[in-house]
Amino acid sequence: MIGGSARRVEDPVLLRGRGRFAADSTVSGQLHLRVVRAGVAHGLLRGIDTTAALAVPGVAAVWTAVDVADLPPIDFRLTALDEQRPYRQPVLARTRVRYVGEPVAVVLASSEYVAEDAAELVEVDIDPLPAVLDGSGDVVPWLTAEEASWGAQREIAMGLGSESAEIRLEYGDVAAAFAAAHRVVEVDVTIGRHSGVPLECRGVSARVDPSTGVLVVDGAAKVPFWNRDAIARMIGWNPRDVHLREGHVGGGFGPRGELYPEDVLVPLAAVRLGRPVRWIADRQEDLVSTNHSRDQRHVLRAAVDETGVVTALDGQFWTDQGAYVRTHSATVSSLTASMLPGPYRVASYRVSGRIRMTNKTPAGTYRSPGRYEGTFARERLMDQIANELGLDRLEVRRRNFIPVEEMPYQRPIQAMGTELIYDSGDYALLMDKLEERFELARLRADVQRRRAAGECVGIGYGWFVEKSGLGPYEGAEVEVDTTGAVTVTTGTSSVGQGVDTVLTQVVADVLDVDLDRVRAVRGQTDRFGYGRGAFATRQSVMAGSAVLKAAEAVRVKALTVAAEHFEISPDDLEVVQGGIQVVGNADARISLGEVAALLEPQHANRLGLTPGLLAEEWFHCDHMTYPYGVHVSVVRIDRETGGPTVERYLVGYDVGKALNPTLVEGQITGGVAQGLGGALLEEFRYDEAGQPQASTFMDYLMPTMHEMPPVDVLVTEDAPSPLNPLGIKGAGEGGVTAAAACIASAIDDALQSPGFVTRTPVRPDLIRAHLATTGTHH
Amino acid sequence: MIGGSARRVEDPVLLRGRGRFAADSTVSGQLHLRVVRAGVAHGLLRGIDTTAALAVPGVAAVWTAVDVADLPPIDFRLTALDEQRPYRQPVLARTRVRYVGEPVAVVLASSEYVAEDAAELVEVDIDPLPAVLDGSGDVVPWLTAEEASWGAQREIAMGLGSESAEIRLEYGDVAAAFAAAHRVVEVDVTIGRHSGVPLECRGVSARVDPSTGVLVVDGAAKVPFWNRDAIARMIGWNPRDVHLREGHVGGGFGPRGELYPEDVLVPLAAVRLGRPVRWIADRQEDLVSTNHSRDQRHVLRAAVDETGVVTALDGQFWTDQGAYVRTHSATVSSLTASMLPGPYRVASYRVSGRIRMTNKTPAGTYRSPGRYEGTFARERLMDQIANELGLDRLEVRRRNFIPVEEMPYQRPIQAMGTELIYDSGDYALLMDKLEERFELARLRADVQRRRAAGECVGIGYGWFVEKSGLGPYEGAEVEVDTTGAVTVTTGTSSVGQGVDTVLTQVVADVLDVDLDRVRAVRGQTDRFGYGRGAFATRQSVMAGSAVLKAAEAVRVKALTVAAEHFEISPDDLEVVQGGIQVVGNADARISLGEVAALLEPQHANRLGLTPGLLAEEWFHCDHMTYPYGVHVSVVRIDRETGGPTVERYLVGYDVGKALNPTLVEGQITGGVAQGLGGALLEEFRYDEAGQPQASTFMDYLMPTMHEMPPVDVLVTEDAPSPLNPLGIKGAGEGGVTAAAACIASAIDDALQSPGFVTRTPVRPDLIRAHLATTGTHH
Repeated sequence: MIGGSARRVEDPVLLRGRGRFAADSTVSGQLHLRVVRAGVAHGLLRGIDTTAALAVPGVAAVWTAVDVADLPPIDFRLTALDEQRPYRQPVLARTRVRYVGEPVAVVLASSEYVAEDAAELVEVDIDPLPAVLDGSGDVVPWLTAEEASWGAQREIAMGLGSESAEIRLEYGDVAAAFAAAHRVVEVDVTIGRHSGVPLECRGVSARVDPSTGVLVVDGAAKVPFWNRDAIARMIGWNPRDVHLREGHVGGGFGPRGELYPEDVLVPLAAVRLGRPVRWIADRQEDLVSTNHSRDQRHVLRAAVDETGVVTALDGQFWTDQGAYVRTHSATVSSLTASMLPGPYRVASYRVSGRIRMTNKTPAGTYRSPGRYEGTFARERLMDQIANELGLDRLEVRRRNFIPVEEMPYQRPIQAMGTELIYDSGDYALLMDKLEERFELARLRADVQRRRAAGECVGIGYGWFVEKSGLGPYEGAEVEVDTTGAVTVTTGTSSVGQGVDTVLTQVVADVLDVDLDRVRAVRGQTDRFGYGRGAFATRQSVMAGSAVLKAAEAVRVKALTVAAEHFEISPDDLEVVQGGIQVVGNADARISLGEVAALLEPQHANRLGLTPGLLAEEWFHCDHMTYPYGVHVSVVRIDRETGGPTVERYLVGYDVGKALNPTLVEGQITGGVAQGLGGALLEEFRYDEAGQPQASTFMDYLMPTMHEMPPVDVLVTEDAPSPLNPLGIKGAGEGGVTAAAACIASAIDDALQSPGFVTRTPVRPDLIRAHLATTGTHH
Repeated sequence: MIGGSARRVEDPVLLRGRGRFAADSTVSGQLHLRVVRAGVAHGLLRGIDTTAALAVPGVAAVWTAVDVADLPPIDFRLTALDEQRPYRQPVLARTRVRYVGEPVAVVLASSEYVAEDAAELVEVDIDPLPAVLDGSGDVVPWLTAEEASWGAQREIAMGLGSESAEIRLEYGDVAAAFAAAHRVVEVDVTIGRHSGVPLECRGVSARVDPSTGVLVVDGAAKVPFWNRDAIARMIGWNPRDVHLREGHVGGGFGPRGELYPEDVLVPLAAVRLGRPVRWIADRQEDLVSTNHSRDQRHVLRAAVDETGVVTALDGQFWTDQGAYVRTHSATVSSLTASMLPGPYRVASYRVSGRIRMTNKTPAGTYRSPGRYEGTFARERLMDQIANELGLDRLEVRRRNFIPVEEMPYQRPIQAMGTELIYDSGDYALLMDKLEERFELARLRADVQRRRAAGECVGIGYGWFVEKSGLGPYEGAEVEVDTTGAVTVTTGTSSVGQGVDTVLTQVVADVLDVDLDRVRAVRGQTDRFGYGRGAFATRQSVMAGSAVLKAAEAVRVKALTVAAEHFEISPDDLEVVQGGIQVVGNADARISLGEVAALLEPQHANRLGLTPGLLAEEWFHCDHMTYPYGVHVSVVRIDRETGGPTVERYLVGYDVGKALNPTLVEGQITGGVAQGLGGALLEEFRYDEAGQPQASTFMDYLMPTMHEMPPVDVLVTEDAPSPLNPLGIKGAGEGGVTAAAACIASAIDDALQSPGFVTRTPVRPDLIRAHLATTGTHH
């Protein structure tokens, strides 16, 4: 089972249209919440007149900041920097609005239509102020002393500027390396603002179960336990009296499931008004309210020797954080800084990342946060080194690879609070395998032949190291019932990635039962004690290992009971097809269900065992695992329109051990689509007043089947992780990581203009302008 | 906390009208099930025409026996006798109907109204047969060979008669004792057919959660885990894929929560039709479908010596089982036989109890099953002994009491599968205390004075031993969250008795937290692994002890963590008001919530502990506990109408240790009301064709405030049970046990006609006839 391409156990219910998404949570008598949002990017809140809205029949309440004045700002979940605390977001704007779409009031009404109509009648009086829109420009005043004190929840004497934090990392003697450099190569590149845009908009519903007094929140996947705790803390409840129930989700990707203002306002309203409350975003508000991401400018300088080896990397980057620092605090920038050197040795390294506030939707993590950006910048730099030194692009990379002999390789810095130790990897081997599997020499020759024939076509490369399997822990309970059916309960969360399938496979493997005899329960905070959530590509590694331990403990318990039953040593028994039999005598057999029946409490007590054929186990790990890969793309440019077409896409990725190769390939293919979107299409643009220019799918361009090339994936298992029993490294993000880098490289190659692409998305108009300038326009 | 009269934690939600009863479970799109019931008591099913019903718009399905032919009969839960298996009930009548009210078909429709209208159109063609209505008459043919084989689920060659089983118990040399007797005293008495009639009719709803595939059944309290398993087995599901969720109940008393045909048909329909399904009984069907009870005739003979000591008891009794043997199999009769000797030594004993089938609603347990009946018969016998020997009624009892020196006292027979060992008791002491507390001498003098003055008034007594705390196990998990709030999760069930309150008290006591910081979760099969249920007055004893163990384990774990925190020995710490502090230094304090936070998985792992401030513990016990008591009543007879009025009611009851004295008193007072109902008012009568004559509250007379006397209760704790750490004996049934015996005794006394009352209910017309005969009618 483990390592087999089992079909997704999640799919039957989804394919039959019986999934339970946010909007499926309807309860009679529920109120509908509508958010009144700021229409200007920056301004002082003079007053809000709710009279007209309150007069609408069916309106139960209209709240503004004064009604939620006792709620603290939304807290940090990860990488919390104390200096960023003043920049956190209130659930409703207090004294000023800072981005178009910021919640300033909520209307609660008997139907969505009444709520929306009444919301239009809420009169918000705002004194506009100039919008700050440049994330790498001058630092400007941002918070008054009062604003800073409120957000920090302590007295702060002075106002604060628009740089909320700076991340600095350094090792080695950078100055000396630059002084000794054969050459210094520099790039100045920008990754545009885009984000994960799930098909399903966000939504949340909540109600207090009148008979138990429990606040039941049907909410987002991703981090149910953290969100449960945060909601409880913010509204003053005991966490054990709040049940967060995860349903299905139409896409996760990072933004979904973080704690947003609405996720607090809805439960609060359910508690205060004593009625079920529901909020479902429409697309327009989803695009201005859900975390944006990326939006970094990188200025990188490399000191290189005459062979193209980078002896030092000196980076500066700016992250356009938008209007508030949300749950991630400095996560994206921190990861950018930690992972920037990628698969290369980089003997000395210095980086400064500045997190800048602007009057845009707040930004957070999106699939491969920091790595997509950093990989784009670094790989642009590697191409530039190749160009300036007249070397082959891949040869430069090979010369800089950390060699397999140096694994595990510690870079003397940290990532996500852990020591940055690449646990295993053979980068050159993966490159060799990719060359062979996809006949890259032939592909390159073909591209060259076509270009010689006049086509504007190029090939590009992007190398990267991913990280996965963030700890510190995950737990699992595996239980076999009296019919032999198995339930595996974890604190994990599903954002569509197939976690149920892989956990089910692990259980089925250890207990030798059919997949359809195993049911996975997760994302229910009343069913398990702790769970860290679905982010950082951590679940297969962490929960997979915990499930393995729990299933093995169940196996041992079953063998103990069976040994007692047959009056034989456990060593003379084997687990076969959902039962235990005496080795060499298949007739002496007891099914796991029968073993479970023997473990009813009375008999279990006689055996000196705890009741039930079940076990709970925990897996702890203090280090991340580091999968790695390479993208190769062939891009053709239409000389008339400047439009790039990605013709072919190849990915090589080493995941240590694939629990389910088909799921890994699916993850990678989906990631490529999102990477391509960010490289060529998707961008949250703003006009000079801070008005979002992409708040519908007419303007925010997602890749479709039409834009997607065939994707060929080579999954290798040459570098199992030594950090977990299965050797797994996560596979959730590697499809996206190098996409912008790789496509940019191919466009440069197509245009035969090294260094042309300095920003994403690479829009046709930019290419066409370039074609016009360089005269390569035929 | 333990032993204090805390207010019921269950009440606030109920008093606010926010309880969730069966009928509160409404889901959009649900189907309503209506049962088509037999209108004759006995007959061959010729055919059922569903055509007209199916044609009604909104009808989704009409099922008869052929549609559920693959379902086995409803199984036994307790005291299963193999010979009774052929007499079990099919969920829909197969070849004949055996009682008025028997389900013969079900209609599933879009509303209750449509379902009821369509049910009237189902044409049931029945060939009537004579009804068997005498439970102690001749044995008659009952099952054909085919019927017997189907119910037994194995081939049975011959038909079977109407005696489904005989219970026989014997110890000592009965024949010798009778041969040597000073006198043989005999009674022939009958306890009428009545039952627990909860205010809330039965109901069940079920649906398959489309996203998880779990069958969610909102069903009755009492035995959720057993019912879950039985439903799963009958419809072929894995038990772990069925969640039974207990709501609130408007009364339990024994009948409620057993597995009835509707409890299987509703989940089955939800599974088959893929829609939520709901059934709520109306009063009329509740009174003919829910278990009846009592209905025993006892012929008891005592061999007595010249001092009134019973040297042998020879009993025969007949239980009118009704048309099928339901989940209890022989429980009532078995308990009757085991407990018949009551508090008396009875040196030799022989009993035969015959379980007879009749064409009435099937019977099962009702509060104090077997003891209410047996106590009535035995105490009638004791009064008769006193009368025939010219002794005081109480003196006869005192002379027969098992003396305290002989405790624990083993009677060499079994009860409910356990050795019958009265664990502790001082019956004479309780009698003394009751005499003193309620000044019985003065009361007797007062009655005598009134009678001398011409009033028809008497005093009566009833002594009894109850049983409680049936094992074999119960478990509990106690968990403290990071705010210090505590959740206690058990496999118990609440039928209104206050189990949440007492379990909460135990936790609050051990952890020294306020009651309102503790929340009890029970009756949810997805939240705990096992639970035996709310019957046999077992929950305080079994679950209370398990909770005590779990809370103490949490306490120890908290002390361990705190000791590590303060770098001090656990012996130098104390638990004070929800926190742990250094003895003698209240400033060195850590709250339980803070301890819980320290036990998040990562830190817990560092401490070498499992995550969370929680513990699961189990309490096992192979013996029952035996509380005991005495009832005293004063009854006045209206000489014109023959109507008895219970003027005063006194109960003395020793429960070993009262977890909550107010709840014990409430249990007893409520029990008295039900006991009085059975003694004087309630009866399911049938006409000669087997038509029920009491299917509404116009005919089935429940006691009201008007009939209820003031009840004074003396709860003593003189005989703690040695079988559990708190010394508890259950208090759920002692209010009802001796009521019929005691009231009968008082009526005899009022009428000055010893032995007059030979049957319950003691109807006014019987008394008036007696008054006319004896000329005491003034």
